[in-house]
Amino acid sequence: MSAMMTTTADAQASPTHTPSAPGSADFDLDVWSRARLQQVEQALDRWVTADVPLGLSHGAPAQLVEAMRYAVLDGGKRLRPLLVLAAHYAVCHGASSAQGISTQDIALRAACAVELIHAYSLVHDDMPCMDNDVLRRGKPTVHVQFGQASALLAGDALQALAFEFLTPQDGKVPPSIQARLCALLARAAGSAGMAGGQAIDLASVGLPLTESQLRQMHELKTGALLQASVMMGAHCSTPNAQALEGLQAYGAAMGLAFQVVDDILDVTADSTTLGKTAGKDADNNKPTYVSLMGLQASKAYAQQLLRQSLHALDATGLAHTEALRALADMVVNRAH
Amino acid sequence: MSAMMTTTADAQASPTHTPSAPGSADFDLDVWSRARLQQVEQALDRWVTADVPLGLSHGAPAQLVEAMRYAVLDGGKRLRPLLVLAAHYAVCHGASSAQGISTQDIALRAACAVELIHAYSLVHDDMPCMDNDVLRRGKPTVHVQFGQASALLAGDALQALAFEFLTPQDGKVPPSIQARLCALLARAAGSAGMAGGQAIDLASVGLPLTESQLRQMHELKTGALLQASVMMGAHCSTPNAQALEGLQAYGAAMGLAFQVVDDILDVTADSTTLGKTAGKDADNNKPTYVSLMGLQASKAYAQQLLRQSLHALDATGLAHTEALRALADMVVNRAH
Repeated sequence: MSAMMTTTADAQASPTHTPSAPGSADFDLDVWSRARLQQVEQALDRWVTADVPLGLSHGAPAQLVEAMRYAVLDGGKRLRPLLVLAAHYAVCHGASSAQGISTQDIALRAACAVELIHAYSLVHDDMPCMDNDVLRRGKPTVHVQFGQASALLAGDALQALAFEFLTPQDGKVPPSIQARLCALLARAAGSAGMAGGQAIDLASVGLPLTESQLRQMHELKTGALLQASVMMGAHCSTPNAQALEGLQAYGAAMGLAFQVVDDILDVTADSTTLGKTAGKDADNNKPTYVSLMGLQASKAYAQQLLRQSLHALDATGLAHTEALRALADMVVNRAH
Repeated sequence: MSAMMTTTADAQASPTHTPSAPGSADFDLDVWSRARLQQVEQALDRWVTADVPLGLSHGAPAQLVEAMRYAVLDGGKRLRPLLVLAAHYAVCHGASSAQGISTQDIALRAACAVELIHAYSLVHDDMPCMDNDVLRRGKPTVHVQFGQASALLAGDALQALAFEFLTPQDGKVPPSIQARLCALLARAAGSAGMAGGQAIDLASVGLPLTESQLRQMHELKTGALLQASVMMGAHCSTPNAQALEGLQAYGAAMGLAFQVVDDILDVTADSTTLGKTAGKDADNNKPTYVSLMGLQASKAYAQQLLRQSLHALDATGLAHTEALRALADMVVNRAH
C-alpha cells in the first residue's frame, strides 16, 4: 500500500495544486491505517456474532450469523471505514491526537456500519439474478457457499445490523449524532443512492450511455456510499459549514474516481489480483468509462478527479486532511 | 372488519378477564382505523416517489420506484401501522384527542416505516430462491411483475427507506426519538428478529419441531416486528416503565397469536379470501401450529393468547387501550 501513497507525477505537475496540509509529506497511510483497521476488524468480529450477549446478533440463528460473518470479515480494502475514520480524524484531530489513536466509539460504529452496507450490497449483487458471480475477495461468493436463500437473508440482516450499530442504547453517543448518521446512511443506501444506482446499472446493460448518464449511474451506485462515508465521519463531531462543503466536494470527486479506476482495472488487471472475476463488465456488455472514452482518456480523467478531490480538501480549512488525501491517492493509483 | 370487533364468546367466558378500559364497549375499530389508514396511505403515496422533491426517493430511477410503490401501496391489512398508531394513541391519548385525529408526525412516520419493512420482507420472501410464490394480496408478486433483480433491489431500497422515514432532518422530531425508533426497528428487522426467523423457517422445512422451537421461530419471524410496532408507537412519546412492560407483554402475546391464526387460516381459508396461495405451508412440508397441535387446539391456543394480550393491557395502567384491544381481537378472529 505504501507505494500508492506517493502523489502521482500527473498530480504534481498540476500548476494549480499546492498541498496545504501541514505534515502531509511525511504522512504514512500504512501506519495510520493499520491500527484503525485492526479496531474495525475487532469490532466487526465482536459485534457480528450470536455467541455472546455483547454480539448484536445475540439470539439469531447460528447459520445466518455464519453467512453474515463470512460476508463481512477478513475481506476487502475497507476503504469506506477508512474514509469514515479519516474524515473524523480531519474534523476532530485536536481532540483525538491527544490520546493517540482513540477513535471515538461512534466513529468506529459508523465505520463498521458503512462496511456492513457495502458487504450486504456485494452479497446481493453477486446473486444469480444480478451479476451471477462466483468469486469475491478470492473466496466463493456467499450464495455459492451458503445457498441463495441464505445469501438473500444474510444481506437483508446485514443492512438492518448497520442501523443497529449506529443506535447504541448505552448513553455514550448523543442521539442527535445517531439520528444524523442513520439519515445519511439510509439515503446513501437506498433508492436515491446505492440501490438506485444498481437498478440503473441493470437497466443499462447493452445500452449506449452518454458520459452524463454513466456519471449519474455511478454517483448513485458507488459514489453515494463513498461520499456518505466521508460525511458520516465528519458528522461524528460538529464540523462547520466550510468544512462540510469541502468534504462533500472531496467525497463526490473521490467517489467518481473510484468507479473510473474500477472500470480501468476491469480491463487491465487479472482475476487473481482483483480477487474477483476480471473482464466481467466487457463480457456483460456493460457501459464503462473505458468503453465510453477509451483507456488512456479514462486514466487521465481519474487523475483529474484526484486533483479535484485534493483541491476540495484545501478548501475545507481543516489542518489535518492527510489521511483523506492519502486515501484519494490510493483510490486512484491502486492496482486492485 | 366490524364483525371481528366483538369480543369472542371464548374470551368472554374467561372468568379471569374483566375489561378495564373505559368506553371500550362502544369503541368502533372501523371508524378509528379509517382516517388513520388514509393518512398512512397518503404518506406512503407522497413519500415513496421519485416525482417531486418531497418524495424521499427523489433522484431515484423511475423503474425502481415503480416496483417499490407496487410492493407497498394499496395492499394488505396494514396491521403493523395500526399497531403503531394504536400504541401511540394509548400512550398519548390526552394530547391527541384534544385535536381529534392529529396523529403526530413521528407516529405516522413510524407507522409507515414498519410497513416498509414488512413490504420488503414480503417481496424477498416471495422470490424463487425463498418461497417462490406468484400471488400476493391478489396481485402477481413483485418478481413476477418486474423481474427478480428488480424485486431484490426494490426490497433492499424499501428497507433503507424505512430508516429514512424515521430520520427527518426538518427539526420537527426530537433526535432522541428518532434514534430510539431506529434502534427498535433495526433490531426487529435483523438477524435477531425477522430475518433470523426467516432463516430458521427455511432451515426447518421438513423437520419435526417442538412447540418451543416453533414458538422461537415465530417470535423472530413475525412476532418481533409486530411487537416492535407496538413499542415504536409507545416510544413516539415518553411512556412510563409500567406502561412499557405491559405493552411489551401485549405485543408478545398478540404477535404469537397472529402466527397461530396464520397457520389456521392456511388450512381453513381459500386463496381468494387470503389474497395469497392457501395450503402453501402444508404443501411445502413446513412445520405449523396446526401440524403440531391440530386444528382445534390451535384455535383454543389463539384464544388463550388473545386473553393474555388483553390482560397485559390491563396491567399497563393506561386508560385508552381500546384500539390495541380491538386490534388483538381482530388479529385472532380475522377471516384472512
